[in-house]
Parts: sequence; C-alpha cells; structure tokens
Amino acid sequence: MTPDTPALHPLADPHDAESPLEFDFIEGARAVFEEKIVFNRVLGLKITTIGSQRVCAQIPMRPDLVGHYGYNRIHGGVISAALDALGGLAVLGAIGARYRDESVDQRLDRFSKLGTIDLRIDYLRPGIGAHFELTAEVLRLGSRVASTRMSFLGADGRLLSTGTGAYIVS
Amino acid sequence: MTPDTPALHPLADPHDAESPLEFDFIEGARAVFEEKIVFNRVLGLKITTIGSQRVCAQIPMRPDLVGHYGYNRIHGGVISAALDALGGLAVLGAIGARYRDESVDQRLDRFSKLGTIDLRIDYLRPGIGAHFELTAEVLRLGSRVASTRMSFLGADGRLLSTGTGAYIVS
Amino acid sequence: MTPDTPALHPLADPHDAESPLEFDFIEGARAVFEEKIVFNRVLGLKITTIGSQRVCAQIPMRPDLVGHYGYNRIHGGVISAALDALGGLAVLGAIGARYRDESVDQRLDRFSKLGTIDLRIDYLRPGIGAHFELTAEVLRLGSRVASTRMSFLGADGRLLSTGTGAYIVS
Amino acid sequence: MTPDTPALHPLADPHDAESPLEFDFIEGARAVFEEKIVFNRVLGLKITTIGSQRVCAQIPMRPDLVGHYGYNRIHGGVISAALDALGGLAVLGAIGARYRDESVDQRLDRFSKLGTIDLRIDYLRPGIGAHFELTAEVLRLGSRVASTRMSFLGADGRLLSTGTGAYIVS
Repeated sequence: MTPDTPALHPLADPHDAESPLEFDFIEGARAVFEEKIVFNRVLGLKITTIGSQRVCAQIPMRPDLVGHYGYNRIHGGVISAALDALGGLAVLGAIGARYRDESVDQRLDRFSKLGTIDLRIDYLRPGIGAHFELTAEVLRLGSRVASTRMSFLGADGRLLSTGTGAYIVS
Repeated sequence: MTPDTPALHPLADPHDAESPLEFDFIEGARAVFEEKIVFNRVLGLKITTIGSQRVCAQIPMRPDLVGHYGYNRIHGGVISAALDALGGLAVLGAIGARYRDESVDQRLDRFSKLGTIDLRIDYLRPGIGAHFELTAEVLRLGSRVASTRMSFLGADGRLLSTGTGAYIVS
Repeated sequence: MTPDTPALHPLADPHDAESPLEFDFIEGARAVFEEKIVFNRVLGLKITTIGSQRVCAQIPMRPDLVGHYGYNRIHGGVISAALDALGGLAVLGAIGARYRDESVDQRLDRFSKLGTIDLRIDYLRPGIGAHFELTAEVLRLGSRVASTRMSFLGADGRLLSTGTGAYIVS
Repeated sequence: MTPDTPALHPLADPHDAESPLEFDFIEGARAVFEEKIVFNRVLGLKITTIGSQRVCAQIPMRPDLVGHYGYNRIHGGVISAALDALGGLAVLGAIGARYRDESVDQRLDRFSKLGTIDLRIDYLRPGIGAHFELTAEVLRLGSRVASTRMSFLGADGRLLSTGTGAYIVS
C-alpha cells in the first residue's frame, strides 16, 4: 500500500471493493452505533461489516437477554430492537455511498435525523445459541424514505427471524 | 370482606369487576412476566393492570434505554420489545378468563407455550419523557392464534407508538 | 339555512360539525376516489363519510369478490386493497383540514402525490356477509409521513380485519 | 419417456427436479387458484411455476387495475391482493412436498383450510408497465403456521414491492 492509498477500515464490506466507504465514515458510524446509542450496548450489538448495500453484526448471548427462562431463549424484543437498529445502520451505509460529495461529518449527521417509521418482525424459529448473526440490506433509498430487509440468524446460519423496516431520511 | 370473598389482586382490571381474574392467576402472571423473563427487567417493565381484555404497564426512563443521545430519546427497540412482551401478557390475560375450568397452574403453563408469530410497530412521535404508559388489548383469541393491539403513550397520554401482534397459542 | 351558509356535503363527518370540510373538497375527493381510481370501482368501494379525522365506506358483496368458493367468503385481497385505499382517503381528509389556507384544487392535487409506503393487514375473522363497513382514521399527519389505522367490519359491526398504513405526503 | 415415468407438469419448478410435485397436484392447485378463487381472475393472476419452495405468477396490466389515473399506475391493492394470494399458493406448494404420504386430494383439501393471519406489503417503486412478475417463497412451514416472503417485479426484473405473510395451516 502506497501512502496515497487510503486505509481500508476492517469493517468495510468486501462487496464494495471498487468503491469502498471511507475509513473515517465507517469509524464514525461504528462509534455512534456501538457507543453513543446506549441501548445498543445493552443489546450487545457488535458491528462486523458496514457497506453501501448491507451491514452485518453479532450479538453474543447473555443471561440479561433471556426471554424464556425454561429454554434459555433470547427475548423476542432483543431481536426486534436489534433488527430495527441494524436496519437504520444499513440506511446510513447507503447514505454514505450516495452522498459522497458531502463531508464525512455531514453524512454522519444524517444519522441523527434518521428515524424508523415502522417495523415488522417475523419470528420463525426459537433463538437459542451462544451468539447470533444479523444482517440488514437496503431495498430502496429514496430522498425521503428508505426501506430495508433484515435477518436474524443462528451461529450456524439458520434463519431465525426476519424484519422489514421503513425509515424517514433527510 | 368475609372469609368467603376471594381477595382482589391490586393489578386486577376494574373492567372485569363482574368476573375478575383470580388473585393467584394475576400474581403468577405478574411474577413470570416481571421476574422470570429477564429482559423484561432490563426494560424496566412494571405491570399496572392485568385483565381479561387488556393489560397495562409502565416503563420509567433510564439512561440505559436511550436511543438518541442528542435528545435523550428512548430507543425504538425498547418500544418494540416492550409492546411485544405486553401483547403476550394480554393474550395470557384472555387465556386466564377463557379457560377458567383449568387450574391456575395449567393456565399459567400456557404462557410458556405462547410465542410471537409476528409484530408490527409504528413509531408516530419521539419517545421523550420521565416515564411511559403501555397498554395492550386482545382483538381476537382463537384456539391457535391470538391477535393484539398495543399502544405506547407518553406520561401525558399522548400516543407515541402503536403495535399489532399475532401470537401462537395452545 | 341562509344564502351565506355554505351547503354541507352529505358525506361530511358530523364529528367535524364545528369546522366541516368544504362541500367542494369532499365532492372532489369522492369523485377521484370512486370514479377516477378504476380499481376502487372494481372493489365496489362506496364512501359514506369524509371527515378530517376519519373516513368510512361500504363494500357490497358480489360474486367477483369471492376468495373462498366453499364459503362465499370475501377474498383477503379485497380487504387489503380496500383498507389501503381508504387509509389514503383518510390522509386526504386530514390534509383537507390541515391546509385550509390552500385552495380546494391545491389540496386535492396533494392526493395525486400521496403514496402508500407500507401496509399491514390482520385477518381476524372470515369475511362473510351481504356487505361490509370500513373505517380509517389518521393517527398522525406529519409533513412527510402520515400513519393510519383501518377497520373492516361485518354488517353487524363485528371486527373482521384491521389494518395499519404509512403514507408519504407532500 | 417410458410409461413408468410420470409426466412433468409444465408449471413444475425446475429446482424440484430431483423430487418434483406430481402432475395432478400441480394441476389441481392451478385449477383452484386460477379458476375457483374468483377474485384471482379479476386480478388476472396467471401462475407460471408451482414448486415446493417457491411459486411464480404474472399479471398483465389492464385498465381495470389502474390505481393512479395520471400515470397509468397499477393500484396498490392489486399488489397486496396478488401477493397475499401468491403467498398462500407457496404454502400449498410446500404442503404438497411435505405430505407426500397423503393423496393429492387430501393435500389440495388443505388449501381450503389455509388462511392468511396477517400480511405486510412494502411499496418501493411505482408499478408501471405492460405486465408484472410475482414470486413467493416459504421461509418456514410449521405444523400450525407458515411464513412467506413475496416479491412484485416489473417486466425488467426491477423490484417494485415486497411482501411478508403469515398463514394458518392445518
């Protein structure tokens, strides 16, 4: 890597290889999401990928997150909360790519104006396991509304829940 | 009160005056919901009413529940998680009334078999305040599926979010 | 009624008595909804009330609308289509009241820019009967997004299906 | 093809090559869906594939289906109605494969007991074109509830709307 090549953030999406999101944008998005949004810390959400089309994260299972005491099953509310949050991050990733003429700060500032309009979660199978994998992709980023699709998977890749969200953007 | 009159649970719904849920049923439902479902404690969900048609709860605001650092706004995921949980409790209340020929334990046992099929949350207005009021009502309790409608309100009664849920029952 | 009192449209909502929508606005909304939106005619949607907070309509049952041949049950798609359409009309009613400083034509023109973002329908009970009653109310009219709640009822007032919709407005 | 090889139905899904659905099952499913469910005829739904995991269909645009007179756009209600119906057909396809120990008639009879619990539709882009392509896949077929995901595409394969449904099965 020459001094002219910007460093790639470890969370950058390999699918964006031709036109990756900037290091500072990804780092800023990660910091807001994992650190400033307190409840995301309660959920234990750890981002693994931030791309222009999709984002990925993990949640390690903890006793705090139990919904069903009998089976050590994760609470459905952890799933809905995490998929809602991750859908919003996916929209931010898409914004990061769409508005490259804006500064990193300007684009990150759009995160604070982003709001969930509504959310649907389908619970397909019980969430039992040592950790979970989450993905969110943007189906459409409009000038006012973005639509996303989210998946909540077991450590073995089995689809446990799906989500759909609409977000207001500006 | 004579020894023959069963005590009314403080969480009993006044609307059920003619045929209230038994003290032991309400107490059992409360204990499972508030104590055994760990993540409900993380949310800070406190039940205020358990009735045959509707249930009510409160959530005091806490720093842990913040979603938007700028405005001290409650995380949308707290709302979705709490409304999902409360919809399930409403179904249990309806089960408590429907199956009075069963013992309290038999009916409470149905709670552990109850599962959310899917959930929709509409975020109408930002959730800002010292505490929030939640209600859930059962639109239909079938032999296999129950449908509920939930509301998330500010301390002033303003409607902040609504929810709709489908639950599998047995 | 003196010559100075504007005529009340027969579809005006009695709840709006203090500040009813104008005759021409209601008539314009009705004409677009019932006549220009062709598929609404296929559904047989007849408006009975256009108000600032809610709208109501009827659908007479017809052989064309059958979904389940065995039971002469109305097709779930008729329900989703009709509730989607009626939710949009409810938003228009709210727009009619909110933007009274605009001309009737300006406000009606907003109808053509209104679009459904997403829709949820819950089917509670089978739709069997000679006709059906529909209502839609606006939960919130924002500057960019409106949220509505809809009900599909039997002729006896029994709740058969419910809907929730988000609409983009401008 | 020898007399021992059962004929493959033209609507059979190539993905099911190793274990295709029987000719009679597919033909029976098609006949009920396209002919007996009257409103599907109003929508103009034509099945192109019936498989164990997914089903596909087409809708030719017709003046009857117009929702927005200005743009000759298809009515959102046609989309929701068609995706609801196609999700149900996808569940039937999965039932056809799951219960091969039952007769064709027994499995087709399950179609008449199948009901939509709830439905979500996301409208991403305006539906304009000479015809539309629809697909539905089964995310999970349980003993009581099935979950599906549906897509509504332009003739060019562009994603216009998505749907998610839950169905009661027996």
